[in-house]
Amino acid sequence: MVLNQIKNNQLEPRITLLGAGPGDPDLISLKGVKALQSADVVLYDALVNEALLNHAPEKAIKIFVGNRTGDEAFSQQAVNQLMVDYALNYGHVVRLKSGDPFVFARGYEEVDFAESYSIETSIIPGISSATGVPGLHKIPMIYRELSESFWVLSGVNTRGEISADLTGAAKSDATVVVLMGIEKIREIAEVFKKEGKERLPVAVIENGSTVDEHILVGVVDTIAELVEDHKISSPALLVFGNVVSLHPSFNRIRDFYAILADA
Amino acid sequence: MVLNQIKNNQLEPRITLLGAGPGDPDLISLKGVKALQSADVVLYDALVNEALLNHAPEKAIKIFVGNRTGDEAFSQQAVNQLMVDYALNYGHVVRLKSGDPFVFARGYEEVDFAESYSIETSIIPGISSATGVPGLHKIPMIYRELSESFWVLSGVNTRGEISADLTGAAKSDATVVVLMGIEKIREIAEVFKKEGKERLPVAVIENGSTVDEHILVGVVDTIAELVEDHKISSPALLVFGNVVSLHPSFNRIRDFYAILADA
Repeated sequence: MVLNQIKNNQLEPRITLLGAGPGDPDLISLKGVKALQSADVVLYDALVNEALLNHAPEKAIKIFVGNRTGDEAFSQQAVNQLMVDYALNYGHVVRLKSGDPFVFARGYEEVDFAESYSIETSIIPGISSATGVPGLHKIPMIYRELSESFWVLSGVNTRGEISADLTGAAKSDATVVVLMGIEKIREIAEVFKKEGKERLPVAVIENGSTVDEHILVGVVDTIAELVEDHKISSPALLVFGNVVSLHPSFNRIRDFYAILADA
Repeated sequence: MVLNQIKNNQLEPRITLLGAGPGDPDLISLKGVKALQSADVVLYDALVNEALLNHAPEKAIKIFVGNRTGDEAFSQQAVNQLMVDYALNYGHVVRLKSGDPFVFARGYEEVDFAESYSIETSIIPGISSATGVPGLHKIPMIYRELSESFWVLSGVNTRGEISADLTGAAKSDATVVVLMGIEKIREIAEVFKKEGKERLPVAVIENGSTVDEHILVGVVDTIAELVEDHKISSPALLVFGNVVSLHPSFNRIRDFYAILADA
């Protein structure tokens, strides 16, 4: 009993940044499950599937910290501070993020903050939606003559603007994946149009890997209209590239343009 | 007993392409473990950790099909055929690949071949080394002013050449991750030098996420020499970008160039 109390006083504050994957709770890694099992506190984001919290001990403290585009329940600074305060007071904090902690998830900001308090941090990568979600729909990142590389961007940068990198991406032959870009689909499609890519295939995948998943396949020229017609909203990712033509839904689009060309 | 025999005769051929992740066997997903548990046959690649085979039933057939750069135990065509033959004769084939099946792993070729036999296929994405391995070393893909996007390429394309996309990547402000490029490090570094990026930080990570892991941090100008001095070989990935300057090993390089600038 006394030993137990001593043990409890010897807290070892540490923080694990854990990537939960794209949404399906079975897409978390075994290493991630083990981290949750040893958590004293779990701080989790808006897009994290709450079923994952069941891996943590019942007595672990579980706190929703939001952080979804346009709906920040807590500012980044507040999350940083919570994370450190809980680690110092309770021990092992698991910071559970959707996707991968270092793919547009401000993971480094959190590591940096924790290390400024000399708190040990470790990273458990997750399956990024950028590759995992198109993959679940059998859209590869690269394929023979269709693409030799892929480029991943966010729809908006930290200043809320479309990233300047998008122009380069639209000029390139890479498969271009845009995360958190659905709200700016019209502007993003314009960037591709300026490069003469009106007919470039595009896929839009909403709620990837979850039961509410929805996929649309089209071309640059009409994708914004299609997204509005189908009322697709965040979270959704965009894939621009010839690899999208491998998706079965693209066949009728190919046929349409073939008929148009003949006419 | 008779029912059992009938059941066994009603084979349901199906193929699951499963991403094992970068090397650490605990980085496979729960969904991946479940797929292995229901496997009748596992066909696995050279870089897959064999500990993962323990998730499959003891009676499952486990076949090594190689497919490592420069050491193809089986041609792609032979792997395709094996996969289909086993599915038709045994039922559930799990095609276990390192990383993610659709990130430079010829996953689509296999799906396409299997579907030409009307065999049901499904994909279970994996953590790609491209993001997961730098992440384990706390090198994020994007960070504030340092990078707004990342671009992933292979050192060699299907024709054995350096991808033409690399020139665009070297010109861009994206973090550039090159998989399977270690053998061509000198030529790849040259492409960045041509863009005046001699001082761009570079990380080289060999055997990422395994016990034999090794990381080197340097700049474009000297990275090829460093790789040769340390006898780094395949499998290894390269990260070009200012985000690499966040790694603690970069501090002494920064100091060195600061002293050089003062002198």
